[in-house]
Amino acid sequence: MKALKEKKWGDFHAIFRPYWNTGGEMGQWNEEMISLLPSTVKVFASAGAGYNWADVDVLAKYGVYYCNGAGASSEAVADMAIFHILSVFRNLTWSHLAARSGDPERWWDAHKYVNDTAHNPRGHTIGIIGLGNIGYLIAWKAYVAFGVKIVYNDILRKSREREESIQAVYYEKLEDMLAVADCVVIATPFSGEKIVTAQLLAKFKKGSRLVNIARGGLVDSQALADALESRHIFAAGLDVFENEPYVHPRLIENKKYVTLTCHNAGGAIETNYRFESLAMENVSLVLSGKEPLTPVNKQFFKT
Amino acid sequence: MKALKEKKWGDFHAIFRPYWNTGGEMGQWNEEMISLLPSTVKVFASAGAGYNWADVDVLAKYGVYYCNGAGASSEAVADMAIFHILSVFRNLTWSHLAARSGDPERWWDAHKYVNDTAHNPRGHTIGIIGLGNIGYLIAWKAYVAFGVKIVYNDILRKSREREESIQAVYYEKLEDMLAVADCVVIATPFSGEKIVTAQLLAKFKKGSRLVNIARGGLVDSQALADALESRHIFAAGLDVFENEPYVHPRLIENKKYVTLTCHNAGGAIETNYRFESLAMENVSLVLSGKEPLTPVNKQFFKT
Repeated sequence: MKALKEKKWGDFHAIFRPYWNTGGEMGQWNEEMISLLPSTVKVFASAGAGYNWADVDVLAKYGVYYCNGAGASSEAVADMAIFHILSVFRNLTWSHLAARSGDPERWWDAHKYVNDTAHNPRGHTIGIIGLGNIGYLIAWKAYVAFGVKIVYNDILRKSREREESIQAVYYEKLEDMLAVADCVVIATPFSGEKIVTAQLLAKFKKGSRLVNIARGGLVDSQALADALESRHIFAAGLDVFENEPYVHPRLIENKKYVTLTCHNAGGAIETNYRFESLAMENVSLVLSGKEPLTPVNKQFFKT
Repeated sequence: MKALKEKKWGDFHAIFRPYWNTGGEMGQWNEEMISLLPSTVKVFASAGAGYNWADVDVLAKYGVYYCNGAGASSEAVADMAIFHILSVFRNLTWSHLAARSGDPERWWDAHKYVNDTAHNPRGHTIGIIGLGNIGYLIAWKAYVAFGVKIVYNDILRKSREREESIQAVYYEKLEDMLAVADCVVIATPFSGEKIVTAQLLAKFKKGSRLVNIARGGLVDSQALADALESRHIFAAGLDVFENEPYVHPRLIENKKYVTLTCHNAGGAIETNYRFESLAMENVSLVLSGKEPLTPVNKQFFKT
């Protein structure tokens, strides 16, 4: 901030935040900070998705676009969801851990008994909570390659064209969707509220599965562990957790039916490349007087 | 055999072998046995894939079709291959085991560092050894849903139509294919010979991956462990092993880059249903004077 006051960098035109795994490493970009930016600055491009460290409305007030790269991770997140879907339908964590144990008896046990409750996804129903870009991509991959039926719940019903491309059936009420889904996939943003509580889990179809690649705070770990233990929920695939890096011990104890990963859904080199290239594209578009590709604060601009 | 000699069952018309997880539970069906069958027997339908327990050529000599159900497991096997492909491209075993450890430091380590060497399959090249029904289905799923490029090696080049449907490029020489594949998937029958030996592994592209959902005997475990250790092969996904239920300890020790399952590739309830229904369809077709769907010994019939 001192450097800004002293105009140490002269009249620069753009701010580029490279890809870091964590957010907030630069402190908060609030009005005090933003007001010090030279008036030549027109764009703040972040090679990442989240942006709770920047007051994007204030940036808009000062005529600065804030652009993020959320779309860059869609492919990686959707692939992770497919990995968890396959794992929970086919009991693959049971199989994986038995093979890793090095114990021939456990191997043999898994070889013989994993199959008795393993299903192909084909012909089963996947229920997507939140059919945004990522939710749609998961649904599309599951539909075209694995022959699943898609049902979904969202605040707004999607276009007929989008629905038809994956033969998706819309459920206005989440509960109604849960009643028919063999596997529920969470792909909705975190608004600060738990969605999958004990109360909601009771509405899931008996013997169904849950996959969460969105945010850990959306699912009550304790309630999920209970539902898994009572066999109401057959299996779960979780990439995210309520209190990362802590994973609820009862989810870990469930050695056959719970697949866990370390919030790596978006984690691929291609995601980082795309984060960076999207940020640079946004910078060069704005500096050449054009509209950026992925502004998140456009609605705050006075037209 | 005594019962057959005494005609205990009268003149029956078909033999149905239900689905058992193991083969050879009935002893060998050789000429001594087959010659005792009533001449009314026209079909032997097995709800399974393998049939090394039956001399199918001798059955043909006596006018008996042997029908298996290999196609029934294709979907399940292809899905398992996709699971392993995603795992080896994205370092998901590392992520999975770290999350399961219950150690927040290991979780954090995986969260941060798994991504540095994780790739989306999209845009990468998958090399299929053996583009039969299963190999094709793996290739097709990988092509349509994950945007990979397909190259393949097989004894015979497939039809132009089949190649074009997945934009597959044929390599007459296996070595040439290995040189361009980022991930090699084995989907060829076991003929008694190891294919993936130390010598062959040296021909793999440096940093590539190996997935085996075919037969364990096709891969030299020791040589694979060496190649993984030297980092020539980046990662491996294995459903089958040389000496099942024994898994080579050095493959187990590799905790980050080796995904193991217990020969469950074909293991789904839908596979068993289809095994049984296909067997019954074969029986009823033959008994009503029609051609069976999946005879394996048709070529031994004298026309």
